[in-house]
Amino acid sequence: NNGINKLSSNLIRNYSSKQSIFQALDTFPKRHIGPNENEINEMLKNINTSKLSKKTPNNLEQLIEYTIPKDIRLNRDLNIEENKVIGENQLLKDLKKIAEKNKVYRSFIGMGYYGTITPHVIQRNILENPGWYTPYTPYQAEISQGRLESLLNFQTMVSEFTGLPMANASLLDEATAAAEAMQMCVNISKSKGPFAFLVDKYCHPQTIDTIKTRAEPKGIRIEVIDSKDFKFTEDVVGCIVQYPSSNGVVSDYQQLAERAHQSNALVVAATDLLSLAMLKPPGEWGADIALGNSQRFGVPLGFGGPHAAFFSTKDKYARLLPGRIIGVSKDKQGNPAYRMALQTREQHIRREKATSNICTSQALLANMSAMYAVYHGQQGIKDIANVVHRKAVVLAEGIKRMGYNVLDRPFFDTVLIITGDKTDMMIKELESRQINVRQYCSKSISISMDETVTSADISAILSGFSAHASKPLGLSSPEQLEKETSSLNVIPEQLTRQTPFLTHTIFNKYHSEHELLRYIHKLQKKDLGLTTAMIPLGSCTMKLNATTEMYPVSWPEFNSIHPFVPANQSLGYKEMFESISSMLCEVTGFDGCSLQPNAGSQGEYAGLMVIRSYLTSIGQSQRNVCLIPVSAHGTNPASAAMVGMKVVVVDCDANGNIDVTDLKAKAEKHKDTLAALMITYPSTHGVFEEGAKEICEIIHNNGGQVYMDGANMNAQVGLCRPGDIGADVCHLNLHKTFCIPHGGGGPGMGPICVKTHLAPFLPGHSVVKGVGGERAMSAVSAGPWGSSSILPITYVYLKLMGGQGLKKATQVAILSANYMASRLKDHYKILYTGSHGLVAHEFIIDLRMFKESAGIEAEDVAKRLQDMNFHGPTMSWPVPNTLMIEPTESESKYELDRLCDALILIREEIREIETGKADRKNNVLVNAPHTEKVIVSDNWNYPYSRSKAAFPTPATVASKFWPTVGRIDNVHGDKNLVCSCPPLSDYQ
Amino acid sequence: NNGINKLSSNLIRNYSSKQSIFQALDTFPKRHIGPNENEINEMLKNINTSKLSKKTPNNLEQLIEYTIPKDIRLNRDLNIEENKVIGENQLLKDLKKIAEKNKVYRSFIGMGYYGTITPHVIQRNILENPGWYTPYTPYQAEISQGRLESLLNFQTMVSEFTGLPMANASLLDEATAAAEAMQMCVNISKSKGPFAFLVDKYCHPQTIDTIKTRAEPKGIRIEVIDSKDFKFTEDVVGCIVQYPSSNGVVSDYQQLAERAHQSNALVVAATDLLSLAMLKPPGEWGADIALGNSQRFGVPLGFGGPHAAFFSTKDKYARLLPGRIIGVSKDKQGNPAYRMALQTREQHIRREKATSNICTSQALLANMSAMYAVYHGQQGIKDIANVVHRKAVVLAEGIKRMGYNVLDRPFFDTVLIITGDKTDMMIKELESRQINVRQYCSKSISISMDETVTSADISAILSGFSAHASKPLGLSSPEQLEKETSSLNVIPEQLTRQTPFLTHTIFNKYHSEHELLRYIHKLQKKDLGLTTAMIPLGSCTMKLNATTEMYPVSWPEFNSIHPFVPANQSLGYKEMFESISSMLCEVTGFDGCSLQPNAGSQGEYAGLMVIRSYLTSIGQSQRNVCLIPVSAHGTNPASAAMVGMKVVVVDCDANGNIDVTDLKAKAEKHKDTLAALMITYPSTHGVFEEGAKEICEIIHNNGGQVYMDGANMNAQVGLCRPGDIGADVCHLNLHKTFCIPHGGGGPGMGPICVKTHLAPFLPGHSVVKGVGGERAMSAVSAGPWGSSSILPITYVYLKLMGGQGLKKATQVAILSANYMASRLKDHYKILYTGSHGLVAHEFIIDLRMFKESAGIEAEDVAKRLQDMNFHGPTMSWPVPNTLMIEPTESESKYELDRLCDALILIREEIREIETGKADRKNNVLVNAPHTEKVIVSDNWNYPYSRSKAAFPTPATVASKFWPTVGRIDNVHGDKNLVCSCPPLSDYQ
Repeated sequence: NNGINKLSSNLIRNYSSKQSIFQALDTFPKRHIGPNENEINEMLKNINTSKLSKKTPNNLEQLIEYTIPKDIRLNRDLNIEENKVIGENQLLKDLKKIAEKNKVYRSFIGMGYYGTITPHVIQRNILENPGWYTPYTPYQAEISQGRLESLLNFQTMVSEFTGLPMANASLLDEATAAAEAMQMCVNISKSKGPFAFLVDKYCHPQTIDTIKTRAEPKGIRIEVIDSKDFKFTEDVVGCIVQYPSSNGVVSDYQQLAERAHQSNALVVAATDLLSLAMLKPPGEWGADIALGNSQRFGVPLGFGGPHAAFFSTKDKYARLLPGRIIGVSKDKQGNPAYRMALQTREQHIRREKATSNICTSQALLANMSAMYAVYHGQQGIKDIANVVHRKAVVLAEGIKRMGYNVLDRPFFDTVLIITGDKTDMMIKELESRQINVRQYCSKSISISMDETVTSADISAILSGFSAHASKPLGLSSPEQLEKETSSLNVIPEQLTRQTPFLTHTIFNKYHSEHELLRYIHKLQKKDLGLTTAMIPLGSCTMKLNATTEMYPVSWPEFNSIHPFVPANQSLGYKEMFESISSMLCEVTGFDGCSLQPNAGSQGEYAGLMVIRSYLTSIGQSQRNVCLIPVSAHGTNPASAAMVGMKVVVVDCDANGNIDVTDLKAKAEKHKDTLAALMITYPSTHGVFEEGAKEICEIIHNNGGQVYMDGANMNAQVGLCRPGDIGADVCHLNLHKTFCIPHGGGGPGMGPICVKTHLAPFLPGHSVVKGVGGERAMSAVSAGPWGSSSILPITYVYLKLMGGQGLKKATQVAILSANYMASRLKDHYKILYTGSHGLVAHEFIIDLRMFKESAGIEAEDVAKRLQDMNFHGPTMSWPVPNTLMIEPTESESKYELDRLCDALILIREEIREIETGKADRKNNVLVNAPHTEKVIVSDNWNYPYSRSKAAFPTPATVASKFWPTVGRIDNVHGDKNLVCSCPPLSDYQ
Repeated sequence: NNGINKLSSNLIRNYSSKQSIFQALDTFPKRHIGPNENEINEMLKNINTSKLSKKTPNNLEQLIEYTIPKDIRLNRDLNIEENKVIGENQLLKDLKKIAEKNKVYRSFIGMGYYGTITPHVIQRNILENPGWYTPYTPYQAEISQGRLESLLNFQTMVSEFTGLPMANASLLDEATAAAEAMQMCVNISKSKGPFAFLVDKYCHPQTIDTIKTRAEPKGIRIEVIDSKDFKFTEDVVGCIVQYPSSNGVVSDYQQLAERAHQSNALVVAATDLLSLAMLKPPGEWGADIALGNSQRFGVPLGFGGPHAAFFSTKDKYARLLPGRIIGVSKDKQGNPAYRMALQTREQHIRREKATSNICTSQALLANMSAMYAVYHGQQGIKDIANVVHRKAVVLAEGIKRMGYNVLDRPFFDTVLIITGDKTDMMIKELESRQINVRQYCSKSISISMDETVTSADISAILSGFSAHASKPLGLSSPEQLEKETSSLNVIPEQLTRQTPFLTHTIFNKYHSEHELLRYIHKLQKKDLGLTTAMIPLGSCTMKLNATTEMYPVSWPEFNSIHPFVPANQSLGYKEMFESISSMLCEVTGFDGCSLQPNAGSQGEYAGLMVIRSYLTSIGQSQRNVCLIPVSAHGTNPASAAMVGMKVVVVDCDANGNIDVTDLKAKAEKHKDTLAALMITYPSTHGVFEEGAKEICEIIHNNGGQVYMDGANMNAQVGLCRPGDIGADVCHLNLHKTFCIPHGGGGPGMGPICVKTHLAPFLPGHSVVKGVGGERAMSAVSAGPWGSSSILPITYVYLKLMGGQGLKKATQVAILSANYMASRLKDHYKILYTGSHGLVAHEFIIDLRMFKESAGIEAEDVAKRLQDMNFHGPTMSWPVPNTLMIEPTESESKYELDRLCDALILIREEIREIETGKADRKNNVLVNAPHTEKVIVSDNWNYPYSRSKAAFPTPATVASKFWPTVGRIDNVHGDKNLVCSCPPLSDYQ
């Protein structure tokens, strides 16, 4: 046959022999995993299993044999998409089909979640921009000034809206913020108890539920009644009201506040930022704490999250404020510089004495909300508030004219209609018109307006009501109703806001799109994210946040759904949740899963609460001792304390492993009251300890449950499983192991997986039925499934990697850590290794000897790495004056080598001090990081050259990332706490 | 009524009195237009109408009265959305509904357009990233090294695939590239004519059509026959073949090339990059020029564009290569640096002697394609090519087995089936299954495979064929067919590629997503776009490219449609085109519109061709004189030359205006042969000349037509209209006035609007019927509507601004130019103003005197502006040694003042030289720009300080943008032409 010939076979890979042409080519594992096959082999050659022999592993399988104890190794692939390899393109198409099972109706349900218009310039340049979503929490402040400035804007905005001067940089959600407020009232009271906290029954139900969950183990008495009936008995440390109330009513709480204060009780206002553009701020009528959800400032509904909760209080309570606070300090050159303030309050310092385990904030979303305020300014927000309010007036008037009974009380955006026996029918009628409203109770409906509401929306609602009305609406269009109600105002004068807000320049300069675009990009440029370099944070797992994982987060089918829509409108979400849950169970070897916890700390809290519920259910409620190894992350004891457990510390041996003898002794000593062990695996020292199974058995034999901290799950996935090891529950940091980006300090997700016997107790939800186990504990988060709209990220990751890909990722994560440790071991002491001399997915380099030899500490090395285009590793944790390095599988060999080269160069720089070639007090390390201004300064009086300071490595010569401020003076900032935008003069 | 009170009225703006609460709040004009009302008033106060009186305009209306001659002012608002104000959010919803009228079927039509998978990391970080889409063409190379490197990657890729060493940085589309190739053959021949060019009839029909259009006015004889029958008579300068052919066949053209070369004719290969991964490259079988569309390398179909055409040739023809070429040169410090090479060939230098008017390239799309190659590398592309090919084999086998007659010739991805009388039925059958194939002729169908094709797609096609088959397919699934054809290869050995490609490090380093992400961001960081600063380019109108305008470009309903789908599948596009056309007609005062021209230069060419067709139609084909003012942009005479017109230059007077006396004299002298006047309005000097109407009348009185260049349309929109002034046709640069981003050097769009008498001649299309006028001229572009998928940008802009918004935008553009001119006039001489001493939307500052006084030229000032975080204005055009500044309406007063301050500071720096305080040969201006490396250098031996060099302004102190290379040596680069990636050693 003319022209039909054999291909020259060596040139074109022959597919028929390898894989079908119908298998996708745009497969993901090769994109997610940094090193290619050649590099993996090269890296393997560099690794010596030094302790046992000088053997080098031949392949990844052998490396794992040397690393993970045999008795816990999983000897099969995970059963995730094992029979097919899905390409990125096809997977998104499949997921889109699932997403389309969600019905995007118009929702006017309210309850803390409202329609909002995300300005597209913010959506594209923050939410959809890896420059903003990939950075870590701003612990390394010198390379984080962009988002720190934006978070300070957030605090300033919250403070001005609420009329309370001290705001934090966001919390997880309104409900947990309320629970934090309750705990803060307890702390402020300085009483030894008993404690009571009064809750207005007109608070949002999910808030009430979450407060109760939190109060119960701490023995705080909760009374849910009408705030009019609040009695401030001696045990009452505080009370909470919703302003405006959950039923829409705007009440004057000034007298209540006076009564509370007379009894030394505090007043917490759960509130709504937008309403505060019209209403007297809580701080002005006497509230001590204000909190709420900033979602309607431009953050999509997302079926419940992620959103940034806000929290503000009086100056005098600053040091008891939970969560992260951004403050102004100065750098080494005396220039103003932002950083996280008051970090000494944090739970990793205070451990079980901490009053909260909260770590994560919702930085990305707080930044979106802050930018929304920057974009609109005072007048813009006022306009929006006014329009929303007047739409509610129009709606109320229209419904009233049809003979319905509308609650005749002041309101902002929510109209309550007493529908009596017609309630069910009305809800169905409206649903048939693709409209969701809130069934407030069996006899009433409430409807909340927002900035997305159109005239057509109001017409549709009115038309729904007219179907069952006693009087005809007639020809009144929303526009006519608007005219006829124009003189009507329903907000009492004494509750009308008189004070300005958003007065700072920041909120008055960037109203054109070009200016806002440039402001966003100017801030972005200051921050080092994964777009610039690896972020080798031990225990924080900064891996690739792949674009394909991120796309679905922006789909309207996911991000435009109210969390409390009827179940039949969220079938797509349901399918995805079930799929993720079952994949996470397969990964962990567990049987049940709750997606509700919004952060790792929340997962710990939820996991321990589930254990607590289980123990109570089997009549073992006296069990309240929690064993925690001394090496544990500080959140562990803080969480144990939150659920009312007594922390007993277990020793570690010289190798950093749990001292099994001590563990056994303590377990047996407390065998009648032992509730749980909290264990991190591999250990916080980055080692797969031997004997993990034995440890679990010891706990079980003494009546306790094993809680496994999932922080180091990236070393286990596909290689071993918490459930197989013997744990009963673990949480998973989806923002570590499962690719949700860190967002510059949040969002995160911390679902928990449990064994069968714990599954019935998984948390439920007071508003959405069918969530959690059969004997569900009450809710731990505002949203039934936490931050739902970021779960597609994890879904896409798991599906695209499949069982084999996940396993290989973990193998390469372990390979990369060991490769780096091997390259560095002749230069630094590597602390802690396993029985073959290998580490897990992270390792610790010891810098303690340099304090004496050269006056150098871990911080100096971390800051010097900034000069070399790096984010420093985890500093001084779990061992003071060390660095813990976690490379992850997503980093290329090039990047691993770049970090090794940088650290080796720094060792030489330390040696220069040791040998007297460099000055002990004035050298590149203690002066690091070096900013542009320092380098360019015309008066250079350092004993080393400018180029040595700024361009020490080839990568910096090729493309320099500049820290924008010098080393920050944290002490100065904490002593002189400034937590809102500094005056204009500082910007010039 | 309890609690119902009046609002405190001074705090909350009362909507009822101003606008309805149902009017959108997210309106766009206030975001698009930089200065707010207060700033506008402040700016007005700064303006003196100096020539007539010292009066200051009271408001924008008065400013316009002083600026635009009364006889041409439009005294009403444009009729665009005048009765409602649409918010950004609602408009996108409305547009989405229109988009959904397009049907996204599976298209296997081929013809140069194929399904492709855009890697999401490229989509989000290039196509959807303002850091990449907002920069200008890289004329200021020192702040454009990122995209210059990427474009060099594009050239390297094209060169290696095609086997021809010299490639350009892209052209508009395959068809116009072919027309350029024809012209290049003419130029290389050095013959005086007559010329002939042979076209293989198996070339894509749209290519043949576009070649014919281009050949006709130049008198080039075109012969479209089977290439086997090519006769290389003496007049033949070249020939073109499609490789693989439009019918899918892969032929060996080696002997053809030998025959051609024996007759001194050149061989052009229109080809397909992906196929060249398997096929012998054109350069290896003797082609002199290769060209094609790089679309299937990751660029969405977009209903025809924008895509980047590629073009390569032999080294010896380098200096005749059309379009932009990126080359390697060195900077002042001797470091390698990229820049556009051989600019002296460009039409603005050669004017009517130019052989092409091509300006725009498709940089953004070329960058996407280059990144696709960077991401996949050689093996990845080979895999894709092989899979695509084997899918075609499977398809052919399946169809053949059902008794169909499949063309039995070697093929790559396209299968030709002789369907005879069943053809129509088969097409309908497949269409009913949502499958589009190509009806190759009345008796045959062709089907092209691509990387998106799945097993299900092939099953669906086979199933369609089985409905009318003579034999059953039986149980043969695509997978079975794959196995049974695995030994079958249909590419002849002598046509199989033997040489490697994509061998450079660049194509082998960034295969993991993290590495590619960082590479993209590393390049982005080097480039100054609108995300950093204003780009005040006179005559280039760099205004806001708003995010809301950009979103729809990514919608599948727009970007996944093949340009040749049946008309009933593109009704959404049709609706949008009609709406845009009618809005553009309203803006220009014209009656007909063609969206086909892909760039401004194409618009000029198309407009003149329409005039030519019209003149022929009225028996005036002898009219071939084109009057062009001496001040015109060089493209004007180049375009006139392309359509065979004889250019006669008209003088300007001392004020820079057209010398009406000279114009009249020349019009009358040529009254029997006068074809057209080409005029830019306001003039290229930035002035609304008086007498424009008179000028048009003179031309009409002498039998000519008036062509108005739309480059300065941003000064006219809503204030005056070309049609009202008297023009007969104008083109519009949608990438200037109508918000399509410049993309770092393309894409652009240059539609034309015409008066009624010209409308019948608007260009048609050989493949898609119903395009253009009743007596349509043949096509000027490959796609019937040019780069369709970026037209939503213009649509959204026009709709969101509405008539009033557009008018105000133009007023503010004029205000901003006059405000800047007023602020600068005491420091620089402002060249050319109108009768009241005002300029239009741009102005020229004269720097000629500084050459003598200080040795400073325009280039020094432009480069010094780079040190101050600015992109320089247009340099030395239209007047040598001047700068032309166009601020646009989107720039805030802050940014305008920042540029004024910078220029005033530079004037002081010049004065320092003039007064001897600074050295004439060694000063901040001639040494600009200063890079990090220069500044940090340990050996600083300049007579000024580092901080003066690098941080001359407050804005640079706040946030410095660093030029990454020093002043580039253009002469060196042109003498030593290197236009592909330099060797690895240069990267270290």
